[in-house]
Amino acid sequence: MPRTTETASFKFNHTMIRVKDPKVSLAFYQDILGMDLLSVKEFSDFTLYFLAFNHDGRGLSAEEKEKSRFAREGVLELTHNHGTESDPNFQGYASGNTEPGKGFGHIAITVDDVEKACERFEKLGVQFKKRPSDGKMRHIAFILDPDGYWIEIVPGVLDL
Amino acid sequence: MPRTTETASFKFNHTMIRVKDPKVSLAFYQDILGMDLLSVKEFSDFTLYFLAFNHDGRGLSAEEKEKSRFAREGVLELTHNHGTESDPNFQGYASGNTEPGKGFGHIAITVDDVEKACERFEKLGVQFKKRPSDGKMRHIAFILDPDGYWIEIVPGVLDL
Repeated sequence: MPRTTETASFKFNHTMIRVKDPKVSLAFYQDILGMDLLSVKEFSDFTLYFLAFNHDGRGLSAEEKEKSRFAREGVLELTHNHGTESDPNFQGYASGNTEPGKGFGHIAITVDDVEKACERFEKLGVQFKKRPSDGKMRHIAFILDPDGYWIEIVPGVLDL
Repeated sequence: MPRTTETASFKFNHTMIRVKDPKVSLAFYQDILGMDLLSVKEFSDFTLYFLAFNHDGRGLSAEEKEKSRFAREGVLELTHNHGTESDPNFQGYASGNTEPGKGFGHIAITVDDVEKACERFEKLGVQFKKRPSDGKMRHIAFILDPDGYWIEIVPGVLDL
């Protein structure tokens, strides 16, 4: 049951981050993390890419993918402002975890086996902020996406 | 079907943002947006609050809520660094949408009726970045959370 009838339809649909180079970011989110591209919206000076884990959706039509863009939870929106990928003066985006610009922290991906997932990330050349063996929190890790955003890797099943 | 067997278990579990005052933020995310508090993790100098839309979950036990914290998509994690709520020198967090610190953009909530949801937000005193009637994109809105993070309000059903 919803908290109120007025919010009964509400879903946490997506999170948007800006990326410097969509080719690099799409390769990361699709090939390394395994997300599917649901939709691409091109405008004159920017393009939006919507991704989600779509494990049951191999048979989804383009229209169904497009419809699911706003209808489901767990969608990641990447905004590419055209030109940043080849601008030598572009300073890069803030991860949100250092001053100035602290606020946003990270996104998190649930995996069945953190150790195994991290071994694969390591093989694929992914940068780590914190390996499972670093620090006290041995059951989680932090990797970096191509823009330096932090991605927490968490186990789906918790030992309570 | 997953893109690869290695990523078959992956889910986009949560997004973390820092908040100045958890009382204010919890009131906003619970009472105005209608999210449920799944879990609270208190550490010596910070506390983590995990929220999600839990419309079917009124009967969930505390243990089931705790387990769902990492097992589902659409979770929002609020990090409160103790003391910011009463520190007169605290400058506030960056929304990610202005320099310096540009990077993160927003989170988005899907609703069945954007107009109706926004009328309710207006009555509840929520701040708007963009009302549905502002600008060209009449089918969406942007509200601000208590820390100034942008929250896009999008319709769950798209007219394609």
